[in-house]
Amino acid sequence: MSVDVIHYYDVGSPNCYIAHKLISDIEERTEESFKYVPVLLGGIFKLTDNNPPFIQFQNVKGKNDYYRLEMMRFLRDHQLTKFKMNPNFPVNTVMTQRGAIVAADEGFLMEYADLTLKAMWEEGLKMDDPEIFHKALSDGGLDADHIAKRIQDQDVKDKLLANTQAAADRGVFGCPTFFVGTEMFFGKDQLMNVEKEIERQKSA
Amino acid sequence: MSVDVIHYYDVGSPNCYIAHKLISDIEERTEESFKYVPVLLGGIFKLTDNNPPFIQFQNVKGKNDYYRLEMMRFLRDHQLTKFKMNPNFPVNTVMTQRGAIVAADEGFLMEYADLTLKAMWEEGLKMDDPEIFHKALSDGGLDADHIAKRIQDQDVKDKLLANTQAAADRGVFGCPTFFVGTEMFFGKDQLMNVEKEIERQKSA
Repeated sequence: MSVDVIHYYDVGSPNCYIAHKLISDIEERTEESFKYVPVLLGGIFKLTDNNPPFIQFQNVKGKNDYYRLEMMRFLRDHQLTKFKMNPNFPVNTVMTQRGAIVAADEGFLMEYADLTLKAMWEEGLKMDDPEIFHKALSDGGLDADHIAKRIQDQDVKDKLLANTQAAADRGVFGCPTFFVGTEMFFGKDQLMNVEKEIERQKSA
Repeated sequence: MSVDVIHYYDVGSPNCYIAHKLISDIEERTEESFKYVPVLLGGIFKLTDNNPPFIQFQNVKGKNDYYRLEMMRFLRDHQLTKFKMNPNFPVNTVMTQRGAIVAADEGFLMEYADLTLKAMWEEGLKMDDPEIFHKALSDGGLDADHIAKRIQDQDVKDKLLANTQAAADRGVFGCPTFFVGTEMFFGKDQLMNVEKEIERQKSA
């Protein structure tokens, strides 16, 4: 029995990068594919009155320092040696996520997601700069001119908003969020439980 | 080589109960003991400008609902069938944690912690009521009269404050927090990494 697995992602989340790097192994072990759904994390935050941790906990002594340490340990334990914090963080992701809508529509989302997540979290590029965005896509072998043109179109803008609203309506308040069937999991630390749930539903 | 492992705990945290239930298995596998250090979680929050999640995220759509679900899954996955939310939550824990200072001083902290964590998170007792507190200790075979008397003493009150301040000074902002040597881990979800770190330091 096949299982629906969704990854609501925004390229601006370092934890979406980390999750992305682990997902292919989970896909191999479970023989199930994750469907990536591009959303706008800033929109999710607005719709749910949530905030990113760096703002939410900015006045809490030690908390963000600790979470940075925990992320470093996670990267170490999973041999994700190419990760580096983006020096331009936080980067506005509207342009890149609109491009993801185009990529999903035209059948190259996984290539696009991989390329843009690396650009953000391995190369530290300022992906909200149109020229840097264009060059990153072009260097990655994508048709940057076409994508840059399509992201101006209203249907693309509307689809990203619709994805974001639909995610929030389902209970999503941050990224990465996963659904296995109707079961929701938040955060990279839940990936092990996502895998267990996939196996549970497959054998159900 | 022996490793220092500390569990900063407050009986008022359901996640300290859950951690407590898993710790004995970790102790058995690693052949290392966790040293419990009673602190006052409310004091930790004040010292670090932190808040419990039910306040921190009270206005975030769906977030606390999700965390409740995640806790239920964790309980299910670890067969912790006796847990129930305390109907009197949040319960003021000053009295119980002062009692833990007495118990630590007189050498029965593990028995005391086990008894009071169960009273809070299996039996749902209102442990900030002096009569209920007294009866719970008494029913558990402890000298409730003695403990009730000792928690009035200034040295006991001071020691709880000192533990709490020392924890915050070390970077603790919530409970449960674990230290393996100088490595800090926050939350029940990190227990697997606590265990790995114990093994790492043992073989170092």
